[in-house]
Amino acid sequence: MNNKSNKVNAAIIIIGNEILSGRTQDTNLAYISKWLNTHGVQVKEARTIPDLENEIIDNVNELRKKFNYIFTTGGIGPTHDDITAKSVAKAFNLKYELHKEAFAILKKYYKAGEFNESRQKMAKMPDNARLIFNPSSGAPGFIVKNVFCLPGIPSILQSMLGDLKNEILGGKPLINKTINLRTVESEIAIPLKKIQEKNDKVEIGSYPFIKAGKLGVAIVLRSENESKISICNEQILELITSKKIQIIDKG
Amino acid sequence: MNNKSNKVNAAIIIIGNEILSGRTQDTNLAYISKWLNTHGVQVKEARTIPDLENEIIDNVNELRKKFNYIFTTGGIGPTHDDITAKSVAKAFNLKYELHKEAFAILKKYYKAGEFNESRQKMAKMPDNARLIFNPSSGAPGFIVKNVFCLPGIPSILQSMLGDLKNEILGGKPLINKTINLRTVESEIAIPLKKIQEKNDKVEIGSYPFIKAGKLGVAIVLRSENESKISICNEQILELITSKKIQIIDKG
Repeated sequence: MNNKSNKVNAAIIIIGNEILSGRTQDTNLAYISKWLNTHGVQVKEARTIPDLENEIIDNVNELRKKFNYIFTTGGIGPTHDDITAKSVAKAFNLKYELHKEAFAILKKYYKAGEFNESRQKMAKMPDNARLIFNPSSGAPGFIVKNVFCLPGIPSILQSMLGDLKNEILGGKPLINKTINLRTVESEIAIPLKKIQEKNDKVEIGSYPFIKAGKLGVAIVLRSENESKISICNEQILELITSKKIQIIDKG
Repeated sequence: MNNKSNKVNAAIIIIGNEILSGRTQDTNLAYISKWLNTHGVQVKEARTIPDLENEIIDNVNELRKKFNYIFTTGGIGPTHDDITAKSVAKAFNLKYELHKEAFAILKKYYKAGEFNESRQKMAKMPDNARLIFNPSSGAPGFIVKNVFCLPGIPSILQSMLGDLKNEILGGKPLINKTINLRTVESEIAIPLKKIQEKNDKVEIGSYPFIKAGKLGVAIVLRSENESKISICNEQILELITSKKIQIIDKG
């Protein structure tokens, strides 16, 4: 529980062989993380794991004790490799059965005769799970305690996050400030380290990049406290001026 | 060690607050995983963790015992938030000091007078680490036992993987076959499950997608055994024909 002390945090479990094999590029981690940050929740760890029951059970059980919120993505569809709901039920020692409300939603969503056995599987969930409304494709996600289970398709997942606003009790959102510079890290590393030491409430990140064949460095300031970011920002701007470094953009 | 039994596997540790915050979209997981697969190594887990010494130490030590190879990305540059080399040294109880060979490479790479203190930091490594040659930006990566430490910038990381071909002792590469269908998962879920049950040496994945506003499903067959993929593929094609499903493409 040590991570729970001051701030509200979360971990993301990305479930799917297709992500691990490199076949599919995950984009849900970045999307969920940015969305959570606007609600004052910081993602502190993410794991990508295969579609294996024991892996899902072990990771859910380890992380749900360590973080305030757990988000899982993937594995809640109708096919044989969709085993997230069943595995989460086992992680919590809950029955895995037809969820009446989910069944009613899906029955209404599909035309008569279309609500077949595999679609009915999407109404099977851990006992007493709370539903996450799916405005784009019917099949709901679900919540068990602090574990939020979402689908893997990014557009559907994104459409469902809105329903969670009132479920998340966050802290202060982190404020970000980015300054993109035309320089290399080793030109600024030592004075930047000194600025970091003087500004312990601001996290200073330094990220080199290559864009259109040119090198640059993004300096990112993060803090819950806007005035501390301003003070730190002034010191960085002084450094930039003294080194005659070109600012590409800031925001 | 249970994961080491039959096949050669790996885990990836993505180190960086910028990935966790959603500011930077990771692409290294997919790239490394595909590259490893061509060398007969399957990625079985990936973790994204913050730039915190204890997190790096704990994750490296947990995963290096569980998997054949560990790849880390990020945190080996010259700035204060680049702490991967120091943390990996601590994970292995090794000294963290100037590496003679790395120092010589960097000294040669930079012009006289440019090899400043922060650039020299990139030559500090765990004692006796083996170097990974960096053809694009000088600063080498390094290897300690089964842990391979690479930078975070994708183009540089990609240029360095070639040097590792002889370091990796892989099993048989997995063969993939993909069939993209104009259907939805629930139309094929039940017969697909039966085909999976009959073909236990082939892993059948079913991945719904939305492309240009249209729904589709990618069926992916994975196995080390090409003839078993062929047999399974025939059964899938029969299913597709019997259901009159349109094939978008296959490969």
